[in-house]
Amino acid sequence: MSSLSLQEAEQVLAAGVAQATEMSVPVNIAVLDAGVNLKAFARMDGALLGSIDIAMGKARTSALFQMNSEDLFEFSKPGGSSFGLENTNGGLVVFAGGRPLVVDGEVVGAVGVSGGAVAQDDAIAQAAATALTAAAV
Amino acid sequence: MSSLSLQEAEQVLAAGVAQATEMSVPVNIAVLDAGVNLKAFARMDGALLGSIDIAMGKARTSALFQMNSEDLFEFSKPGGSSFGLENTNGGLVVFAGGRPLVVDGEVVGAVGVSGGAVAQDDAIAQAAATALTAAAV
Amino acid sequence: MSSLSLQEAEQVLAAGVAQATEMSVPVNIAVLDAGVNLKAFARMDGALLGSIDIAMGKARTSALFQMNSEDLFEFSKPGGSSFGLENTNGGLVVFAGGRPLVVDGEVVGAVGVSGGAVAQDDAIAQAAATALTAAAV
Amino acid sequence: MSSLSLQEAEQVLAAGVAQATEMSVPVNIAVLDAGVNLKAFARMDGALLGSIDIAMGKARTSALFQMNSEDLFEFSKPGGSSFGLENTNGGLVVFAGGRPLVVDGEVVGAVGVSGGAVAQDDAIAQAAATALTAAAV
Repeated sequence: MSSLSLQEAEQVLAAGVAQATEMSVPVNIAVLDAGVNLKAFARMDGALLGSIDIAMGKARTSALFQMNSEDLFEFSKPGGSSFGLENTNGGLVVFAGGRPLVVDGEVVGAVGVSGGAVAQDDAIAQAAATALTAAAV
Repeated sequence: MSSLSLQEAEQVLAAGVAQATEMSVPVNIAVLDAGVNLKAFARMDGALLGSIDIAMGKARTSALFQMNSEDLFEFSKPGGSSFGLENTNGGLVVFAGGRPLVVDGEVVGAVGVSGGAVAQDDAIAQAAATALTAAAV
Repeated sequence: MSSLSLQEAEQVLAAGVAQATEMSVPVNIAVLDAGVNLKAFARMDGALLGSIDIAMGKARTSALFQMNSEDLFEFSKPGGSSFGLENTNGGLVVFAGGRPLVVDGEVVGAVGVSGGAVAQDDAIAQAAATALTAAAV
Repeated sequence: MSSLSLQEAEQVLAAGVAQATEMSVPVNIAVLDAGVNLKAFARMDGALLGSIDIAMGKARTSALFQMNSEDLFEFSKPGGSSFGLENTNGGLVVFAGGRPLVVDGEVVGAVGVSGGAVAQDDAIAQAAATALTAAAV
């Protein structure tokens, strides 16, 4: 699997913090590598403590399945194909805010954001993930 | 309980890998014995890391109850007879992809497959389980 | 409790990374606030994966007791006054590399470093912690 | 980090099983990749059930620290530099039988063996790890 450098992880964090600052939403941001191991983390001033674990969980969920965290909801939801999926892997987080980090078409990790409303978290995660993709071009 | 040899477990894995390769779906495959202890495991190249735990969970669920993993859903589902059943035993996986391994009418273990869509996982699990049955004939 | 800003935590990380780079020892660095909650984290390229948890543990130990992590060893060691102390709090790390972050005589958090030899980790933790103190002056 | 293919992992298992068979010591063998995720596993017929977790633990310890599992003992032992190290990372296994898998000078994973005496486990782990190195030459 491709590696994710600390410099890249810090670019992801910085892009996420910039977006969150612009939106005035203090969040926690976690960056994991493709092997689902923590690479970098930042808790913005004023971000909720309960969101530390959620940011980690979103990043972990996204890295484990190489898709957006909320994509797992389709499988997990009542009536979905995979009842109880969210309870596997020690607990998944299946709402938005976790996104894969993709470089040259390959998943090199994932970012997870938590602290605001779900749509806000997701917008910040998107900005964070996109920064790495843009930097790679 | 009847024993499951490593040779048999490897036959199960090989049949599963062959079926998955034919379907171009990289999966994780876990084989447990009738005592619900891990006997053999393989993660195909490109298989999702989040599916390791699910493959294990499907095999464990199937071995624990000597039935297909999805058969537990009937009891677990909202309105089913056994509310919360999926949370017993440290967490069950109650969607398809786990199947008992049967030799001479006796359950000797179970196989669990995860990595593709649920129907794909189940087709692979079926091929894996059938190989053992066929070999025993 | 006094607060630790993300900017301060990033100063701590940067000072630690700079020291570790000069020593050619890739490490994991965790920064916690005085409430013993994660504030920032960085895994340098090439740092051991097993040291993620140890860096976290050293920072947690130091923040929990507001002293250097190795100071707990005196109590924990065979014959020490507090037999089994290292097993409290979900497991402490009682060797060097965890240091309190002090601003104006008050503990505002702690830093934990792991990846090299213990003496190396400690030197990096000291550099990291000192940077914050110096910046505060 | 470099990837470890299923084919390579199966070579490692096969070499371990061959060595164990020659020594008449039934063992469990676990193979992890460099990201410390399970790749392949085999329990030989007659191997102790209590050794499943130990084989996993040795492989995990070796992959986490990119060294032989028993090398951690030097740090962990009474009077060693890192009192309690064995309790980090959810519990390490710091006796022999876990070895890194090295290809072209890079660690691509680790193998863990358990079921016999420690020296036997280690000889089997060495045979297993060497097979991959030899195959890569």
